[in-house]
Amino acid sequence: MPDNLSDARYEVALANRMLANEGVLDAFGHVSLRHPADPSRYLLSRSRSPGLIEPDDVLEFTLDSEPVVPPSVQLYAERVIHGCTYQARPDVTAVCHHHAPAVMPFCIAGVAIVPVFHLGAAGGETLPFWNQRDEFGDTNLLVVKPEEGRSLARALGSRAAVLMNNHGATVVGRDLRELVSRSIFMCQNADYQLGAQLLGKVATLSAGETKLAGTLNAMPNVTNRTWEYWTLRLAEAGRMPPRAAAKARPRAASARASGSRRTPAKRPAKRRK
Amino acid sequence: MPDNLSDARYEVALANRMLANEGVLDAFGHVSLRHPADPSRYLLSRSRSPGLIEPDDVLEFTLDSEPVVPPSVQLYAERVIHGCTYQARPDVTAVCHHHAPAVMPFCIAGVAIVPVFHLGAAGGETLPFWNQRDEFGDTNLLVVKPEEGRSLARALGSRAAVLMNNHGATVVGRDLRELVSRSIFMCQNADYQLGAQLLGKVATLSAGETKLAGTLNAMPNVTNRTWEYWTLRLAEAGRMPPRAAAKARPRAASARASGSRRTPAKRPAKRRK
Amino acid sequence: MPDNLSDARYEVALANRMLANEGVLDAFGHVSLRHPADPSRYLLSRSRSPGLIEPDDVLEFTLDSEPVVPPSVQLYAERVIHGCTYQARPDVTAVCHHHAPAVMPFCIAGVAIVPVFHLGAAGGETLPFWNQRDEFGDTNLLVVKPEEGRSLARALGSRAAVLMNNHGATVVGRDLRELVSRSIFMCQNADYQLGAQLLGKVATLSAGETKLAGTLNAMPNVTNRTWEYWTLRLAEAGRMPPRAAAKARPRAASARASGSRRTPAKRPAKRRK
Amino acid sequence: MPDNLSDARYEVALANRMLANEGVLDAFGHVSLRHPADPSRYLLSRSRSPGLIEPDDVLEFTLDSEPVVPPSVQLYAERVIHGCTYQARPDVTAVCHHHAPAVMPFCIAGVAIVPVFHLGAAGGETLPFWNQRDEFGDTNLLVVKPEEGRSLARALGSRAAVLMNNHGATVVGRDLRELVSRSIFMCQNADYQLGAQLLGKVATLSAGETKLAGTLNAMPNVTNRTWEYWTLRLAEAGRMPPRAAAKARPRAASARASGSRRTPAKRPAKRRK
Repeated sequence: MPDNLSDARYEVALANRMLANEGVLDAFGHVSLRHPADPSRYLLSRSRSPGLIEPDDVLEFTLDSEPVVPPSVQLYAERVIHGCTYQARPDVTAVCHHHAPAVMPFCIAGVAIVPVFHLGAAGGETLPFWNQRDEFGDTNLLVVKPEEGRSLARALGSRAAVLMNNHGATVVGRDLRELVSRSIFMCQNADYQLGAQLLGKVATLSAGETKLAGTLNAMPNVTNRTWEYWTLRLAEAGRMPPRAAAKARPRAASARASGSRRTPAKRPAKRRK
Repeated sequence: MPDNLSDARYEVALANRMLANEGVLDAFGHVSLRHPADPSRYLLSRSRSPGLIEPDDVLEFTLDSEPVVPPSVQLYAERVIHGCTYQARPDVTAVCHHHAPAVMPFCIAGVAIVPVFHLGAAGGETLPFWNQRDEFGDTNLLVVKPEEGRSLARALGSRAAVLMNNHGATVVGRDLRELVSRSIFMCQNADYQLGAQLLGKVATLSAGETKLAGTLNAMPNVTNRTWEYWTLRLAEAGRMPPRAAAKARPRAASARASGSRRTPAKRPAKRRK
Repeated sequence: MPDNLSDARYEVALANRMLANEGVLDAFGHVSLRHPADPSRYLLSRSRSPGLIEPDDVLEFTLDSEPVVPPSVQLYAERVIHGCTYQARPDVTAVCHHHAPAVMPFCIAGVAIVPVFHLGAAGGETLPFWNQRDEFGDTNLLVVKPEEGRSLARALGSRAAVLMNNHGATVVGRDLRELVSRSIFMCQNADYQLGAQLLGKVATLSAGETKLAGTLNAMPNVTNRTWEYWTLRLAEAGRMPPRAAAKARPRAASARASGSRRTPAKRPAKRRK
Repeated sequence: MPDNLSDARYEVALANRMLANEGVLDAFGHVSLRHPADPSRYLLSRSRSPGLIEPDDVLEFTLDSEPVVPPSVQLYAERVIHGCTYQARPDVTAVCHHHAPAVMPFCIAGVAIVPVFHLGAAGGETLPFWNQRDEFGDTNLLVVKPEEGRSLARALGSRAAVLMNNHGATVVGRDLRELVSRSIFMCQNADYQLGAQLLGKVATLSAGETKLAGTLNAMPNVTNRTWEYWTLRLAEAGRMPPRAAAKARPRAASARASGSRRTPAKRPAKRRK
């Protein structure tokens, strides 16, 4: 976990951009991080497409999803997805809500995503569903009320992700790296599962394999490799987050200097002239 | 709505390029805008692939789809799609005709596109079809006669879009932003619907959800975010429209200066060295 | 048709690169052009992936597919596809052989490609098949013998294209622009047809619509727009052919100067800083 | 085969990057090469995503998959896939393990990949399967134990590739070029086979055609063209491997100078300004 708030805000921007670059997020979706020093707060961007988020866009919220500093900018309507998940899940440090094209057919068909390859086993045997209509009747499908957020968190339970009917998915992780890995591999798993179904049969991992393979995404051998890979791809696309402005940070809730910012993935910059 | 003609012509070029960059338009298709000062005219490019349109290409037409100034350039054959729609729909300010790959299978199979996720609900419950053959027999499928344009507008009725059998779609909006959003999300909706059908079941939004979610694309929280996102992607691809030539504008119907042109999306230019 | 040999060789390189850039050709496939001054010869590159071909790579062949000048470079093994087609079809000026991903499923399933949208109607009602095995038994599927080339040309007959079982397709045109258009729209048609079949029904154009729409790809309104579009995309990708070397052209069969070469698509270069 | 170790290490990096650039490898997968001078050793990168591998990352291993020099870096967990294959197959000089999206549906459905076009015939009539669970019960599906590697090599037998249930594939070649060709064309074959099945029928090559076409990928006419093509695409993407550091190569097992390194694909660099 990033060790100070300035780093944390940079990492939130980075994770948002990384998932946008890998096709999990598009104009919509958002990644949040529990505050590194205060577990009763979380960090989330102002309302903005995830691929454009800068460290200065990242604000602090209470677990009731209220901004700590009165904002001068527009906020995401669906903040309660994050706040209610952090309230219900002390083990969770990072949350992603997305509408990835790979999972949408499953969210619409109501077909369960099941682990079909080793890296897709992070979600456990079968991902749960949450249908907003069951409890709240007709809505515009945005999750905006605290009771909607709490209902979603109950459907998530102790799992790694929950599918939202006709809407998308919410994924959790113990840290940003696990969250990013899970989100990406869950999409690959969904794509491969659909392909296998078109071929006529979906053979899943056994319960034992699912349990054993389910920890792969947290192995340093795996997370180091994937993090370097997705960072390089983001840098190659010219989409790395800018550093936070040092002097005036009107929207930021912290006054810490960001001079100690380390540069991730210097290498790709060197590779290009 | 853009507040002067020079802005409007730039916005027409921008919307055409944006939809080309997002894969809705390709070598074909066109976006028009009702004249900002004179509702009895509309703005449309000369015949050119939409991704290449420049403000200077955008001409004025009467609602009978006749050019206001005798043109020295080739015009789109299917102008009546625009003129007849503006005649029939006083509430409509922007029109897009396209052959997007996402909708073509539905246009060929005659299968209705139905709202399967919240952002896809803009079209209402089920999009209408128009089969040129029903009223006009064998044609080359281009919509070129005023009576063909009027027939298409009748099939559109008060809806957000109409599917054209074996041809494509025509989408309308109250402004360019709603039009662009609707066109893009309608394609996503079609893709997800096909994916869900491959999984075996297409669960649609309820009538109530469709009505409530149908206004999402017009919410500033949504349109600001998407417009910034698609503009950034266009700028990243190096495809922003050039400014109109200040001095000689032989093909333009207006003599207004364009010196006050504001630059959209400066930011991405700064991000790249 | 290009009016001199130097232009013609440039156009052959351009058409090969254009179809590679649009995904019709990959490491394989080739485009040839009948010699602009001598209908008993044709122009084809030395053996090279089509996206890399330069004007200097383009050689002259007799209609028996023998090089006019003894070559110092490797030649395509399947030249007879071109020579035998030019022999059988005096109306044909350009030939493309390809393995485009869009048509391969049809070549493997033996399912006919039928016109499902107006721009896909260039091939007529149903494209013919040619199965090399029927006449020649087990081969490696390359078309290398004159009798194989003649058999393929017979299957093509007077049509715009022929599908080759488990292999690919051969497309013809009255000029390079019609050839390129037909090749690209045939792939789009195949993609849309497969999509419609997945939705459950493939409604084709009527015979009358097919005939009327079949000429769209040759209309200047259409070909000018598409040629500008595909040229821009090629230029944006940085893949325009280089000019022929003026002095030493060891592999070229002609000694004409290429000083009068015109530059297509200057514009995109200007658009980029 | 590369004629010295320095060349060989560069070629290993190049083949890894090439297959990553063509979508066969992603964050995972690896290509190894038998040592050019010592058939009892092989060359494989330290643990790293294949698209990022540099010559300095490439280490020497015994056929028991032990590093020749004690490493200071992390190693791939699945090295035995390579070592056990080289032990069982003296004819094999290059090995690739991958999870390409094209083959995953077949690995999950347990549906055989069969030759459906001439370039896809390299694998022979039907590719064998290996299910780790059959012999080893529940695992995390990584192939890490020598007995797992030997079991996989037995399933491979004398074939060109083996599919691993719910995991991926392992492909072999007599040299890196054949390996790269086979890996790429096997993925194309899988894609086309799935497409044909969606159309309703998969017609395979006959046994005789498979045998005759199976050697195409080793024909110089083919391998020269494809190698130039994939190298160009890698260079266009700005992803060619850097040269090895001349002076200090702490992780390298060899001290040979790399001054004689030739630059592949100079041309694309010239084409871009």
